[in-house]
Amino acid sequence: MKIWDKGIAVDQKIEQFTVGQDRALDMYLARFDVQASKAQANMLAKAGLISAEENQQLQQGLTELSAQIEAGDFVIDEAFEDVHSKIEYYLTEKFGDAGKKIHTARSRNDQVLTAIQLFLKDYTERAAAKTMELVRVLLEKAQAHQADLMPGYTHFQAAMPSSFGLWFSAYAEHLLLDLALFEAAHTVADQNPLGSGAGFGSSFPIDRKMTTQELGFGNLAVSSVGAQMLRGKTEKTVAFAMAGMAATLAKMAYDLVLYNSQDLAFVELPAAFTTGSSIMPHKKNPDVFELIRARCNALQALPNTIALTTSNLPSGYHRDFQILKELLFEPMTQFLDILDIVLFALPQLRIKPNLLNQAKYDTTFTVENINQLIQSGTPFRTAYKEVGHAVEAGSYTPHREFTTTHLGSVHNLGLEEIQAKVEALRKSSRLLR
Amino acid sequence: MKIWDKGIAVDQKIEQFTVGQDRALDMYLARFDVQASKAQANMLAKAGLISAEENQQLQQGLTELSAQIEAGDFVIDEAFEDVHSKIEYYLTEKFGDAGKKIHTARSRNDQVLTAIQLFLKDYTERAAAKTMELVRVLLEKAQAHQADLMPGYTHFQAAMPSSFGLWFSAYAEHLLLDLALFEAAHTVADQNPLGSGAGFGSSFPIDRKMTTQELGFGNLAVSSVGAQMLRGKTEKTVAFAMAGMAATLAKMAYDLVLYNSQDLAFVELPAAFTTGSSIMPHKKNPDVFELIRARCNALQALPNTIALTTSNLPSGYHRDFQILKELLFEPMTQFLDILDIVLFALPQLRIKPNLLNQAKYDTTFTVENINQLIQSGTPFRTAYKEVGHAVEAGSYTPHREFTTTHLGSVHNLGLEEIQAKVEALRKSSRLLR
Amino acid sequence: MKIWDKGIAVDQKIEQFTVGQDRALDMYLARFDVQASKAQANMLAKAGLISAEENQQLQQGLTELSAQIEAGDFVIDEAFEDVHSKIEYYLTEKFGDAGKKIHTARSRNDQVLTAIQLFLKDYTERAAAKTMELVRVLLEKAQAHQADLMPGYTHFQAAMPSSFGLWFSAYAEHLLLDLALFEAAHTVADQNPLGSGAGFGSSFPIDRKMTTQELGFGNLAVSSVGAQMLRGKTEKTVAFAMAGMAATLAKMAYDLVLYNSQDLAFVELPAAFTTGSSIMPHKKNPDVFELIRARCNALQALPNTIALTTSNLPSGYHRDFQILKELLFEPMTQFLDILDIVLFALPQLRIKPNLLNQAKYDTTFTVENINQLIQSGTPFRTAYKEVGHAVEAGSYTPHREFTTTHLGSVHNLGLEEIQAKVEALRKSSRLLR
Amino acid sequence: MKIWDKGIAVDQKIEQFTVGQDRALDMYLARFDVQASKAQANMLAKAGLISAEENQQLQQGLTELSAQIEAGDFVIDEAFEDVHSKIEYYLTEKFGDAGKKIHTARSRNDQVLTAIQLFLKDYTERAAAKTMELVRVLLEKAQAHQADLMPGYTHFQAAMPSSFGLWFSAYAEHLLLDLALFEAAHTVADQNPLGSGAGFGSSFPIDRKMTTQELGFGNLAVSSVGAQMLRGKTEKTVAFAMAGMAATLAKMAYDLVLYNSQDLAFVELPAAFTTGSSIMPHKKNPDVFELIRARCNALQALPNTIALTTSNLPSGYHRDFQILKELLFEPMTQFLDILDIVLFALPQLRIKPNLLNQAKYDTTFTVENINQLIQSGTPFRTAYKEVGHAVEAGSYTPHREFTTTHLGSVHNLGLEEIQAKVEALRKSSRLLR
Repeated sequence: MKIWDKGIAVDQKIEQFTVGQDRALDMYLARFDVQASKAQANMLAKAGLISAEENQQLQQGLTELSAQIEAGDFVIDEAFEDVHSKIEYYLTEKFGDAGKKIHTARSRNDQVLTAIQLFLKDYTERAAAKTMELVRVLLEKAQAHQADLMPGYTHFQAAMPSSFGLWFSAYAEHLLLDLALFEAAHTVADQNPLGSGAGFGSSFPIDRKMTTQELGFGNLAVSSVGAQMLRGKTEKTVAFAMAGMAATLAKMAYDLVLYNSQDLAFVELPAAFTTGSSIMPHKKNPDVFELIRARCNALQALPNTIALTTSNLPSGYHRDFQILKELLFEPMTQFLDILDIVLFALPQLRIKPNLLNQAKYDTTFTVENINQLIQSGTPFRTAYKEVGHAVEAGSYTPHREFTTTHLGSVHNLGLEEIQAKVEALRKSSRLLR
Repeated sequence: MKIWDKGIAVDQKIEQFTVGQDRALDMYLARFDVQASKAQANMLAKAGLISAEENQQLQQGLTELSAQIEAGDFVIDEAFEDVHSKIEYYLTEKFGDAGKKIHTARSRNDQVLTAIQLFLKDYTERAAAKTMELVRVLLEKAQAHQADLMPGYTHFQAAMPSSFGLWFSAYAEHLLLDLALFEAAHTVADQNPLGSGAGFGSSFPIDRKMTTQELGFGNLAVSSVGAQMLRGKTEKTVAFAMAGMAATLAKMAYDLVLYNSQDLAFVELPAAFTTGSSIMPHKKNPDVFELIRARCNALQALPNTIALTTSNLPSGYHRDFQILKELLFEPMTQFLDILDIVLFALPQLRIKPNLLNQAKYDTTFTVENINQLIQSGTPFRTAYKEVGHAVEAGSYTPHREFTTTHLGSVHNLGLEEIQAKVEALRKSSRLLR
Repeated sequence: MKIWDKGIAVDQKIEQFTVGQDRALDMYLARFDVQASKAQANMLAKAGLISAEENQQLQQGLTELSAQIEAGDFVIDEAFEDVHSKIEYYLTEKFGDAGKKIHTARSRNDQVLTAIQLFLKDYTERAAAKTMELVRVLLEKAQAHQADLMPGYTHFQAAMPSSFGLWFSAYAEHLLLDLALFEAAHTVADQNPLGSGAGFGSSFPIDRKMTTQELGFGNLAVSSVGAQMLRGKTEKTVAFAMAGMAATLAKMAYDLVLYNSQDLAFVELPAAFTTGSSIMPHKKNPDVFELIRARCNALQALPNTIALTTSNLPSGYHRDFQILKELLFEPMTQFLDILDIVLFALPQLRIKPNLLNQAKYDTTFTVENINQLIQSGTPFRTAYKEVGHAVEAGSYTPHREFTTTHLGSVHNLGLEEIQAKVEALRKSSRLLR
Repeated sequence: MKIWDKGIAVDQKIEQFTVGQDRALDMYLARFDVQASKAQANMLAKAGLISAEENQQLQQGLTELSAQIEAGDFVIDEAFEDVHSKIEYYLTEKFGDAGKKIHTARSRNDQVLTAIQLFLKDYTERAAAKTMELVRVLLEKAQAHQADLMPGYTHFQAAMPSSFGLWFSAYAEHLLLDLALFEAAHTVADQNPLGSGAGFGSSFPIDRKMTTQELGFGNLAVSSVGAQMLRGKTEKTVAFAMAGMAATLAKMAYDLVLYNSQDLAFVELPAAFTTGSSIMPHKKNPDVFELIRARCNALQALPNTIALTTSNLPSGYHRDFQILKELLFEPMTQFLDILDIVLFALPQLRIKPNLLNQAKYDTTFTVENINQLIQSGTPFRTAYKEVGHAVEAGSYTPHREFTTTHLGSVHNLGLEEIQAKVEALRKSSRLLR
């Protein structure tokens, strides 16, 4: 078969093997590499390591590249092994020696790392914004469906009355909590490694505080050795954050797949989210939610893949870190896609009314029957037995009327309290500024 | 062999299988279950669900249990399947029906969950305090060894001059960063689930804000469905935090194992941390650091084990969550032990002086030679070639004198800047209050 | 709290940290260490490295130890750090210098490794025997329930008629397939490392073929360097085998948890396998199967934990391997317990009859309706549309009569073919000899 | 940035999300889908479900497609969502209704599964053949370098004399052992699922034994439910096999990276396998081996990713399985590439001679000194102390002469015995037929 044996010479294979997918993956970094290069040039000029004129040229060239990137015109040709060599080439073509000087007091190591830090920091903010939008939608749905009761399950068994209000607001609160890991990832990404060189600093008199400020980093990664050790850690922390929220989204998707089955039939999924069967005309398979679940579960595995790739390496750069780009960047895109798709799906979800009126859910009211007996003076143990016997004997009649008063219960969702959490997070989180 | 086939009846096997190691593991939770029960009783009294006198009895009994626990006298006998039944038994033995009432408007689900939340929150604070102590020690060592140069490695190859000052301070900064994940775990653990019952609330008029306040929780897990979904999430987030910091400690241990080899010989490990060989009298094996590395790597696998155990379960309680206690609690103890051992080892570490004087490290100065040529007017590319040819020809002479000025470099560690990060974290972190 | 802060001196902590749980875990190895020591002594005698008399003494002492182990009287006191030192002490106490000579031309490395190889090889055989017993039970159940139809699900949706015969026989076939990984683990464990010393052989004129034969190993791990590299590999391969079969058992448990729900209600679980709820008298929670599922999922994570602990270590022994004992041995026991519990549960499983008569499963017959139309001349596409319209319009009548003829279908389970696979495996597998 | 926000309509996003990378990935399956379709058509003709003429047409069309695939001319246009629809379209375009009949008594589920089984079975054979080639090269190198001594390391410390003969032959033996997992994967892939339909069989009178034989499957997956359960299991077993061998290759790569460092300097890597540094002219970084290590470690994580994606799904097809193609197929290619690159690199490896003559390795001979003293009558413990004191006092003189005789030792590599293992495997393995 051609696929395995493409008749490629081994040298070419090694070239491919080492370059990997860098050209494609570096497109994610282009904008940030330009941004960091601008800050670097400004700093070099202030430190007297390049002239004001050289800096002006570099700023101009970088601004042009920035415009190309925004316009979608920027390409990393086959002639270049990565985005960094392409950018240097552009500047050198245009300005000669001044172009080359962009790399003064910088090594490829701190250059790549800086672009990755900026990129991942930006990503966490982007993901957080989408998450907050999803929280808003979930709270709206909770409000809209606060009167739609459903059986609450434990051990895959119908247990007690619950509601779609509780279900939607549960996921809203959990997404808020999941942002705590994004906050941690943001903190790690918010450290400036520029100036740490190959991990041991530089003998040039550079000003690392200046680039920290110009690039908007909250902190300087002070020790050059420590700065280099960020490689792998920031990536893994972003993976932790995605994995954490992916678990929440996978659970939601799992719930919806179940709720869409004939046996439960709690919801109707939007048509665009289901597919039929080529041989069974009655099927409405919840494929999109199954794929969301699957992708979220694969995302849950990502931190482990990164750990296995980077563990048991002593301090200092190793080429192993290179493949983190391909392990991480594509799943990052997929994760945002998932958020988009959920955001699109939820408003279209149709909830089936009056679910608890089905006889098979009668026993979900046993706790209410017992409480009623207790309130009329029966001790708990006696009431429990009495109701239990009735269930066994088939003579049980559900006590369907019940009212709950406490925060977070069927009749008091506490949506204002949850909204207050939203507001508090907006105020305190560095992610959401 | 007796070990596999103990002649145990299957019923007994099932009993053992379901109880698992709960009796032992619940010792971790005892203190927190008592604390939560006190808050619950006070709230029930205020809500009029138990009398003032009953509450007084419950408070007294729980205070007694608390004293037993602190004194190390509390035991969960074989007659009880877990800590919760033991405590209820104690109260009921002592106060009759009043004792039973402790379980009013509470289910085993929210009770266990509340104890776990309190326990894990407390743990994150405890781990953070130890971490801060380790940061302090590392910064002291960085200060003490700022003049001790060492070769800096990339790709396992000696690359450029570095120093133990940079090395120690790198780990100090990284441990500070690792606290961001503990902060996230603390945020998740700081949600009060009490009152959520089996995950669908209660029809009793309980006051969940009151228990939130009395237990010192920062937030109420409002939706009862969402409160129950904390099970598994808090555990996994604590595991993320341990895994993140474990990666840092494993890297440090790996460095020290390497630095202790005859080939590098950068450090001498304290005697208590090495072992000899029964057949080779010259060996000083760094066993303790190898075991730290191994245990830290096993800890890195923990979030994944928890993810595999809890993924693809729909919302609502499942018995699967039970085994998280055995997956998590023992490693939590091991993690604190590791911090203690590192805290004990570091001050005893002996650094070998003048490492860079060895001829094999001459080439780590090539960058300095090149910089020197550049400063005397040679263009970079020419200087690079000249020094490269000298290295190839064996005529290279290292330019050992060099001075760095920027923050985070060999001659300017920026320890005050790192100390400022320590102070800032002490102020902002909820972990360290 | 006492648990964290036991006031233990650090030296003692280091001692505990390095010994770990070796004393307990080495009980698994005792029998095999004695066996290997006997072979070693016989070989030393034949090679003239010890006298015939010394060998006789060693054989006698080891036979005594063997009897103690079988009788359950063997103990590794606190005075000894592991089973190996205990055994040597026993022999030396008894026979003086002759006792010490057991360790001639052997190092702790190859000694431990040999015991582990023997233990893991034995384990794979033991697990395989239990698996074959489970296959037998499943095939019996398949036979007994071949007429019990059930809805077959895809995408969590009732799709087509299936049967418990197909379900039981599916798991029988899969367990047979899962043995392929146990066979692989057996192959890796069946290599004799004895004589490889610390990983670089010995200058004594030992006869490694002799010990290979006496210990019943299928192969000699020839290269001493390679022999030492078995450490970690054999453990991981056993973990792969358990993980593979655990996935099958977890799926079976998941099916049964679902089938036990009120919504599906396909089976009734044996009483000993369910538990009630303290507040809901109608609940019959499938706790044992949930715990089987959870433990099987934790087992699925085990190979990864071992990989993380052992990856990125160069060749040669590292102390890191020590902790594999605690990562692996206890889960190995749990895995056998799970097989026992499933073996006990399955015969008691009660299948609900006539499941497909429920109206909600009518549409599982649409494929049959279509086939019937096709057989009477309607083209497939027309038939598909016709039946689909009927389903939509609510006028659909299921065509409940259907007969299948091919192997592996509802009316032709092909149990003889599966039994033939069982026989073939019994003949070819080295596991089952 | 354009990359995140491509202005794609959500419908299109959903379409992309569900189709995923199927068009590209299905190219791996094309050849096998054609093969299976031919067998299916022949069987349908024999069973009288299609006419002889129709079969002739289908065979002709499929032969044409087969030729296109071999020639590299086969394309899955955007109009088709996967390879299967493209093939059906081709046949239907060409032969009208006869083309459509290829899908008689087959569902997409068993069709895809059959192609995957054939593909993965073929892959394991392909990987095994390459592995055997690598074993051959390693044994040649062992032979060639049997006299090249090197220090053997334990705990990262030089311990005893070893040799490159032992090192090369160790990896040869381990790769042979690693084939045991490929054998297991082959066994699982060697089950024919064709005819199991959507997992519950078909009411058509198909002949599953006939397709099993025509497709060269060793076994029929009898139970239709069980056949469908192969999805995920075969993929994971192939992942286990790759992960197992990847660990071996990663260890070899790690060794070589270390051996290439200035501190050890045991080997010289081929120029094509190292890269320089842009700022340090003395560096020869072992990038290719670092990338081999990194990719092998990522491969070690693959079984876990598959487990997380497929665990806790009950029996029956779920769309989640779809993404296994993208998780698995690309890494499978990378794994073969790694084998190719190692095969290309090893013959070019230059071994440094006389490594043990360096003073820093003197102490690796202490065991020999002790043995010499023992042979002249000194008791072991006395000899051990004597040599130990000499080492401490700096008066130690290594006893460099030593001869080993046993199999697998420095002077008796036992290469014939290892070659005998190779032959035995060639005879017994179904992989290597």
